[in-house]
Amino acid sequence: MTYAKKPLVGIIMGSSSDSRIMKGAAEILDEFKVKHEDQIISAHRTPARLAEYAQHAEKMGFDVIIAGAGGAAHLPGMIASHTVIPVIGVPILVYNDKHHKKTDTEKFSAFGGLDSLLSITEMPSGSPVVAVGVNKAGNAGIYAMKILANKFPELQKKLKQHKSDQHESVVKESEMMKKQGLSSFAKKKFK
Amino acid sequence: MTYAKKPLVGIIMGSSSDSRIMKGAAEILDEFKVKHEDQIISAHRTPARLAEYAQHAEKMGFDVIIAGAGGAAHLPGMIASHTVIPVIGVPILVYNDKHHKKTDTEKFSAFGGLDSLLSITEMPSGSPVVAVGVNKAGNAGIYAMKILANKFPELQKKLKQHKSDQHESVVKESEMMKKQGLSSFAKKKFK
Amino acid sequence: MTYAKKPLVGIIMGSSSDSRIMKGAAEILDEFKVKHEDQIISAHRTPARLAEYAQHAEKMGFDVIIAGAGGAAHLPGMIASHTVIPVIGVPILVYNDKHHKKTDTEKFSAFGGLDSLLSITEMPSGSPVVAVGVNKAGNAGIYAMKILANKFPELQKKLKQHKSDQHESVVKESEMMKKQGLSSFAKKKFK
Amino acid sequence: MTYAKKPLVGIIMGSSSDSRIMKGAAEILDEFKVKHEDQIISAHRTPARLAEYAQHAEKMGFDVIIAGAGGAAHLPGMIASHTVIPVIGVPILVYNDKHHKKTDTEKFSAFGGLDSLLSITEMPSGSPVVAVGVNKAGNAGIYAMKILANKFPELQKKLKQHKSDQHESVVKESEMMKKQGLSSFAKKKFK
Amino acid sequence: MTYAKKPLVGIIMGSSSDSRIMKGAAEILDEFKVKHEDQIISAHRTPARLAEYAQHAEKMGFDVIIAGAGGAAHLPGMIASHTVIPVIGVPILVYNDKHHKKTDTEKFSAFGGLDSLLSITEMPSGSPVVAVGVNKAGNAGIYAMKILANKFPELQKKLKQHKSDQHESVVKESEMMKKQGLSSFAKKKFK
Amino acid sequence: MTYAKKPLVGIIMGSSSDSRIMKGAAEILDEFKVKHEDQIISAHRTPARLAEYAQHAEKMGFDVIIAGAGGAAHLPGMIASHTVIPVIGVPILVYNDKHHKKTDTEKFSAFGGLDSLLSITEMPSGSPVVAVGVNKAGNAGIYAMKILANKFPELQKKLKQHKSDQHESVVKESEMMKKQGLSSFAKKKFK
Amino acid sequence: MTYAKKPLVGIIMGSSSDSRIMKGAAEILDEFKVKHEDQIISAHRTPARLAEYAQHAEKMGFDVIIAGAGGAAHLPGMIASHTVIPVIGVPILVYNDKHHKKTDTEKFSAFGGLDSLLSITEMPSGSPVVAVGVNKAGNAGIYAMKILANKFPELQKKLKQHKSDQHESVVKESEMMKKQGLSSFAKKKFK
Amino acid sequence: MTYAKKPLVGIIMGSSSDSRIMKGAAEILDEFKVKHEDQIISAHRTPARLAEYAQHAEKMGFDVIIAGAGGAAHLPGMIASHTVIPVIGVPILVYNDKHHKKTDTEKFSAFGGLDSLLSITEMPSGSPVVAVGVNKAGNAGIYAMKILANKFPELQKKLKQHKSDQHESVVKESEMMKKQGLSSFAKKKFK
Repeated sequence: MTYAKKPLVGIIMGSSSDSRIMKGAAEILDEFKVKHEDQIISAHRTPARLAEYAQHAEKMGFDVIIAGAGGAAHLPGMIASHTVIPVIGVPILVYNDKHHKKTDTEKFSAFGGLDSLLSITEMPSGSPVVAVGVNKAGNAGIYAMKILANKFPELQKKLKQHKSDQHESVVKESEMMKKQGLSSFAKKKFK
Repeated sequence: MTYAKKPLVGIIMGSSSDSRIMKGAAEILDEFKVKHEDQIISAHRTPARLAEYAQHAEKMGFDVIIAGAGGAAHLPGMIASHTVIPVIGVPILVYNDKHHKKTDTEKFSAFGGLDSLLSITEMPSGSPVVAVGVNKAGNAGIYAMKILANKFPELQKKLKQHKSDQHESVVKESEMMKKQGLSSFAKKKFK
Repeated sequence: MTYAKKPLVGIIMGSSSDSRIMKGAAEILDEFKVKHEDQIISAHRTPARLAEYAQHAEKMGFDVIIAGAGGAAHLPGMIASHTVIPVIGVPILVYNDKHHKKTDTEKFSAFGGLDSLLSITEMPSGSPVVAVGVNKAGNAGIYAMKILANKFPELQKKLKQHKSDQHESVVKESEMMKKQGLSSFAKKKFK
Repeated sequence: MTYAKKPLVGIIMGSSSDSRIMKGAAEILDEFKVKHEDQIISAHRTPARLAEYAQHAEKMGFDVIIAGAGGAAHLPGMIASHTVIPVIGVPILVYNDKHHKKTDTEKFSAFGGLDSLLSITEMPSGSPVVAVGVNKAGNAGIYAMKILANKFPELQKKLKQHKSDQHESVVKESEMMKKQGLSSFAKKKFK
Repeated sequence: MTYAKKPLVGIIMGSSSDSRIMKGAAEILDEFKVKHEDQIISAHRTPARLAEYAQHAEKMGFDVIIAGAGGAAHLPGMIASHTVIPVIGVPILVYNDKHHKKTDTEKFSAFGGLDSLLSITEMPSGSPVVAVGVNKAGNAGIYAMKILANKFPELQKKLKQHKSDQHESVVKESEMMKKQGLSSFAKKKFK
Repeated sequence: MTYAKKPLVGIIMGSSSDSRIMKGAAEILDEFKVKHEDQIISAHRTPARLAEYAQHAEKMGFDVIIAGAGGAAHLPGMIASHTVIPVIGVPILVYNDKHHKKTDTEKFSAFGGLDSLLSITEMPSGSPVVAVGVNKAGNAGIYAMKILANKFPELQKKLKQHKSDQHESVVKESEMMKKQGLSSFAKKKFK
Repeated sequence: MTYAKKPLVGIIMGSSSDSRIMKGAAEILDEFKVKHEDQIISAHRTPARLAEYAQHAEKMGFDVIIAGAGGAAHLPGMIASHTVIPVIGVPILVYNDKHHKKTDTEKFSAFGGLDSLLSITEMPSGSPVVAVGVNKAGNAGIYAMKILANKFPELQKKLKQHKSDQHESVVKESEMMKKQGLSSFAKKKFK
Repeated sequence: MTYAKKPLVGIIMGSSSDSRIMKGAAEILDEFKVKHEDQIISAHRTPARLAEYAQHAEKMGFDVIIAGAGGAAHLPGMIASHTVIPVIGVPILVYNDKHHKKTDTEKFSAFGGLDSLLSITEMPSGSPVVAVGVNKAGNAGIYAMKILANKFPELQKKLKQHKSDQHESVVKESEMMKKQGLSSFAKKKFK
């Protein structure tokens, strides 16, 4: 069974500004050559689209939905309530930097992402959503691969290779640090 | 214009166990003789009813909706997204006591109500919900009276009387404490 | 009944530096063509003005008061204690940026707005204030419109149009993202 | 393809006292007639078994691992690091009740489950674990069903039935509340 | 100069239920034979009394005001705004026990006293209140003695005696523990 | 009785870097023409000086000690344990800015000042320290004036003048905002 | 070199009520047959004893000091400032139960142990104390064994045996759970 | 017995970016002329190396391991589970600055280091790790010296000298501040 022909994952987010974080998920899927469809579904500004999107996702045959949202992050839980497709929630923390203009004072998230994290995980019994760490969209991408790998053995192989590459890269850096000593290593890295 | 003929307030909550807290709102409305309609609407177990309820509420002509929910409290925000009627959110903290059986371990709220409070207030720009304090359903009831009093002068009078009664009752207790001294007063009250 | 002739909303804040956030409420009211009166009332530096302002507000016939304050945010609760007009509290988080000079070290808010939020919501039974999210002055503006819309059907229409405009604008952005793919979309937006 | 013949899910936990919470996951799996294997694997007291268990799980062909742990909850993340099988973490909050003896003072969890939740979600990039809410073992069970339903259409049907049953039961309770009124409803439920 | 003739300290609190904690302050003052006047002044239910009490306190010549309040604890800050008398705030945490009936669900404080503590300390520049620890009314009493001791040397002597008594009592218990060993000591104390 | 001749207040802090915040206290005292003596006393790097300083302070006849410290802020509590002079604690939050060099990574305070605040207030019964808000050294200065005003009527007059000046300045700004409207006012202030 | 002849560890705590938790450390030391001396040293009620105890500990030749304290837990840091002996801090959370009488309202710790934990770890650079988890006195005991094992190879052997015993006991319970199934196992354990 | 010939301390960290903080430990060890070996061991990306490293460390005869990690900081606890060598954990908080590029959004730590701190300290009974404060790698270095000083009296002397140098340097700065006055001192330091 080959997985590469049609989108297997739906990526959604509550606002276009979340794309800055959520692209981390897309990049992993692209790396694993898994097709995905990306949309903005706002639980609050487009509530009618929640049910529509859920039906669309089931019709498309998505195996996983990755849903990112910040603040009172209702999107992951609301989509999960409309479908039996597993939803991975990404709590999003918007923080202050040059991308936020002076007039953006309302955008700054006050609670370090804790508001989003709890809005995603603390669902009532019977309606589960799961969460990765705050802003960890890339991890949501890899977790989606793990779910898909149950059906597509090819992906399982790629995941093992990915793990093994990570291992190698850490070992290599460790050798370097051991040889140079920590102080020299850090000075070079953070000069 | 008389307010007493038809329900002006819709009270909803995410689960029947929230009724223990939410009855505090009903009691205030009853005291002010304002009719209300009470329902359980679960954002997660009955998502399709969110839009239905919003239409029902507009058709009924409710002036205010009081919505209580615990944990990842999506109900107030989701209803507010479906209607222009002002929604007052009540963050609910379920805590451990004799009403919770040994098998109820999943019911115990872990975050002191902070999860519910932030799930209600931290809505995106454009989709406001407001919150009263954790478990303060009675205060949601009084706030609803304040909103209704804009249209119904009778309620304004009752609210002023209510304030004045509170004032009197505090002054009376204060006189008692002043006379008895704090230690005696407290000993009597908490023997 | 037309709403446009006299101020219907009083906007107050604890300090002139809060105007940077609170102007978000004024902008919404201006957009809806609802007149408002704006003042600085400090619960702590001008305590005598609390009762005066409450009387002034009732005399002016305001239907809503929007009150913003940071830190130990007593203003919304204290005004609410003096009047039956519904008060919407805006918790304000001052944060560090170029508008704050080196000598401004006392201005930096240490608790992410949680201090202000709880100082507003956790009122005793009988004295309700409601809160929107931290720094969400714009949402307080829209909530005020929802309260006024109970009396002024024109505003109800405008609110529905506002909702529908939001819906359109999200759908449009979503189409763009779906077509371009998430990575390209994000790269364009945050280059 | 039938799913009922061999265990598809491995349930593990850090300590035998976690079984009180984790049985919630087993009960869901039993309800869905999905076989599971249950073990205690302590990341700290049996570190050598982590790699062994991961190999065992891959050999058994588990599609999902549900891992519960409290305090510094390392188990879900450590197992996830050893395998490509998706791991669902359950943050566990042990609290004070008659099951904890006077000598159990070290067992009482001090941080409301926040320690466990963050120890599970805040994994580095590349090594995802996902979490359900604190003590929500039942939700982990349902999420596991959602993952399995990608392969076993029978489970998808059962999940839809489960959703529809929840819907019915809420609607029924809501009708009762609407008819009785909130105060009477609550009094009966919590007498 | 003798201090014993007239009340030197005003003790106030937001509600009669705070008397259970606040009596700790009265007991210290009684022990030091310093007269005090005790009242209930609710910032929210009796706002008009704030200014009146401040004038009364100045007329009575109080040297210190001890003000206890829970939740959104505005009382200490509001009194401090009305007078130049130093105010010591006591953040109050009401918790669940046999004194709280089933119907008292609104009384239970959700934030561990953090709401009260921050509502007291985080005053704007120019309007100081100080706080002792949560529920530490006794410490507020001793701090009041320290302030009074600047004027009344007799109190300074008593404070030194108090310190020295504390020292003795700890040393005595320590000797006992050293002799019995920790395990035996603890077993006797907590049997 | 004149207060201006000898130092009445001891200002101490845990480290020279705290002087950036603590100078706010000195500036108030200078404004009120109250003499003060300023020292660095580190509870941890100079523990032997704690007892020495306490004796020095009593010998100097200080009426108040203002003690600032960050992180595990032991200084205020430890000094208070050595003397009967009232101690006002200032919790200090060091934050990131141009004054902190790349090598200063250990200086950045991780807990928003909550660590310092609780390290100061949560003293055991019998050993009170009081705290002002995080970084509110100026408020500690004014509170010291309030304590001194019990002995020096001149200071009481100055405090009342200070209050009245604050009042005037807020009223003036409020008039300006009322006239210009909030949006214009904010635009001018934060251009 | 034999370790059994003289006390190698000093156990101290801030108050006799801490002995309930701290006996957990003594029990481990007794199990490993390491002698210890136990005292109550209150940083706040017996500040003069801090320096004395540090000298005593160095004279006794203690290799480790275990110091437990709750609230604003200054004891571990203050002792560490007086000596070069490594200090292990135990943050103590006193909680509500039958050992705490109605009059003990001041004893109840409001911050879940976070206050104690941060008061111990967040020491300034140059003055380290280390902390184990809240109330984990037993872990402090084992960590002390690890430090001592550097000098006493016998202890190293015992620690390895201890580890291996833990391993066995977990494996045994795991076998039982695997055989009985999670639901039956939990029902037996928590009937 | 001389300590200078072979590495006595193993320094490890979860990622090369942690070297920026962890070099603080190396610098202290270098200052005390204690040899150390530095490696990167990722609990999650190189789980197989945990057991290997533990064996390596015991074979090398390390007396202490210093282990730094951020987020869900499993490294210190997992290493401690594999060996009887005492492990000092350093919770690491990565924060936003010029070293973090726009694409680094996943690196920003959302919980102020609290996640790392609790992931290190809240270990189950029987498996202790200890923690210093967030980012306090230098303190971990000094604590390691304290442990080593039990075996190497030379180090004890150096530690006492280090303490005495700190004392001198604080006293000198204090003299300067006392002479110049706080305001002038601060202005010079922070111009």
